[in-house]
Amino acid sequence: MRYEDLAERVVAGEHRAIARAISVVEDGTTEAAPLLGPLFGCAGRARVVGLTGPPGVGKSTLVDRLTAEWRGAGQRVGIIAVDPTSPFTGGAVLGDRVRMQAHAGDSGVYVRSMATRGHLGGLARATGDAVVVLDAAGHDVIVIETVGVGQGEVEIARTADVSVVVTVPGTGDDVQAIKAGIMEIADIFVVNKADREGADRAVAEIEAMLALQESPSEDRPPVCKTQASTGAGVAPLVAEIDALARGARHRGGRRRERARSRLRAALTDRFLDAVGDATIDAAVERIVDGSADPYREADGILERALAARRGAAAAAAGRGAGASDG
Amino acid sequence: MRYEDLAERVVAGEHRAIARAISVVEDGTTEAAPLLGPLFGCAGRARVVGLTGPPGVGKSTLVDRLTAEWRGAGQRVGIIAVDPTSPFTGGAVLGDRVRMQAHAGDSGVYVRSMATRGHLGGLARATGDAVVVLDAAGHDVIVIETVGVGQGEVEIARTADVSVVVTVPGTGDDVQAIKAGIMEIADIFVVNKADREGADRAVAEIEAMLALQESPSEDRPPVCKTQASTGAGVAPLVAEIDALARGARHRGGRRRERARSRLRAALTDRFLDAVGDATIDAAVERIVDGSADPYREADGILERALAARRGAAAAAAGRGAGASDG
Repeated sequence: MRYEDLAERVVAGEHRAIARAISVVEDGTTEAAPLLGPLFGCAGRARVVGLTGPPGVGKSTLVDRLTAEWRGAGQRVGIIAVDPTSPFTGGAVLGDRVRMQAHAGDSGVYVRSMATRGHLGGLARATGDAVVVLDAAGHDVIVIETVGVGQGEVEIARTADVSVVVTVPGTGDDVQAIKAGIMEIADIFVVNKADREGADRAVAEIEAMLALQESPSEDRPPVCKTQASTGAGVAPLVAEIDALARGARHRGGRRRERARSRLRAALTDRFLDAVGDATIDAAVERIVDGSADPYREADGILERALAARRGAAAAAAGRGAGASDG
Repeated sequence: MRYEDLAERVVAGEHRAIARAISVVEDGTTEAAPLLGPLFGCAGRARVVGLTGPPGVGKSTLVDRLTAEWRGAGQRVGIIAVDPTSPFTGGAVLGDRVRMQAHAGDSGVYVRSMATRGHLGGLARATGDAVVVLDAAGHDVIVIETVGVGQGEVEIARTADVSVVVTVPGTGDDVQAIKAGIMEIADIFVVNKADREGADRAVAEIEAMLALQESPSEDRPPVCKTQASTGAGVAPLVAEIDALARGARHRGGRRRERARSRLRAALTDRFLDAVGDATIDAAVERIVDGSADPYREADGILERALAARRGAAAAAAGRGAGASDG
């Protein structure tokens, strides 16, 4: 199918077309502009919510509850579960089957796991592009669920309209992890499993940390308590998310970050494609056998790539001159 | 100081020069080739050990114990603590002060925290370059400690000679995290805090997971129990790491991954530099105001960058023709 036709079917909301389009962006082809360009033109209405936290805090259950709330309000929900799994096989082990059961048969919910393929940065780019697909397909809310506090997750959270960081009452390790992690980009903190001992202390610790920041108290991220297993606290959390997302959309800051991140990723991919695997492989072999270093090789590849084109241009100019002479 | 002179002082093992050189690579200037080129030529002898795991498993204490073992064997140890902290301020909050106390006054140990600055991929590149600095400075072992299971961490672990994944006995969440995380790139698993209840079960769970893989049992990663607080189990772990690292170095596979990762990062940085912030900023504004999409903008920027050079080349060719005519 032509990418233009696929784009049309995505905008019509066809689930199979959505799945196909996300597979295209996941493969990371740089020739997907005819697909993504039109989709991007139809996107921009969805609220993009990032939800992150270490394993075991109940993110999946919480996302299911949030989804149920939004569905109850007639909203269409797209969920992207970002899986740091398996850089070699590209497999996504978590989620899909289990998650789909909760909303099976509900055409207003689309769930997709994404795993990294290819080089660093590929996952952030693919996730950003998948958001465009789900947005263009008419989803009102798009949740990006990530594990951990790695740089990739930070990059992904930065581009959401609202970043939600989830933790649980515990030994203080989790609070430390937040502190060391994505504290500065969190818009909302959630202490899940709030029936556990120490929930209020966890809330107090996060609030104390936030009080150390320089921002005025009215700009500080709210700290919500939830119990995803029962649904307690989920409705107020949804209200906080929606209020922030609607505000953030008009402020445009996150949207600018998102545009910059996408552009940079697309540029990088295209450039590496233009250089070509053969050139990179040859340079890698020279580096491995000790006859070259990566830094001068990089300088050289950039220089040669441009020189080759200059040469082609000069040859073309020469042919042109010859033709006009003849 | 000229980069060439700085490189000489790094190779001489001067701590201040090492610190200065790592700051240069952390800043991510693309003009550091005169520093990194010579250093790369002197590097390649160190064993590079990646050590990763979620917060609270005792990574820092374990690294201290490992360091004491290597020091006892007369080895020089460089430690890079990768901090996913604070993408906006670039601050590195964890580690340095606390860590340095344990090995204060020991000139055979160099500890450095690194945090992300700038765009995605910057941390992996900077960490890789810092390994080159520490390697050239004569460290026998370089430990890269990372938190979490994000893609950045996976990328970093991939380039180590030996990747060690640390967990603790627990609810099974940690094992799930490993499963979902860097399972396939782990060379050694460690169950730390092995005095806790459930340690043997944790080992059995990891071994059961490994048995599901297709690799023959003799190629399966060992699972070690340690108690970093007392030092129990650390000497056998060091023996496993050293044996693998010495083998891996000769196999060269990891070294090839590392060369590829460095080259790609250096290329990407240089290309984005060549495009320039002004061009990217202007395109971002067009994307934000809805008059453009990131994919066609990326195509356009690449095309225009090359066309501009073609134009310059054509102009130069034209001038040349004019001169020969005149």
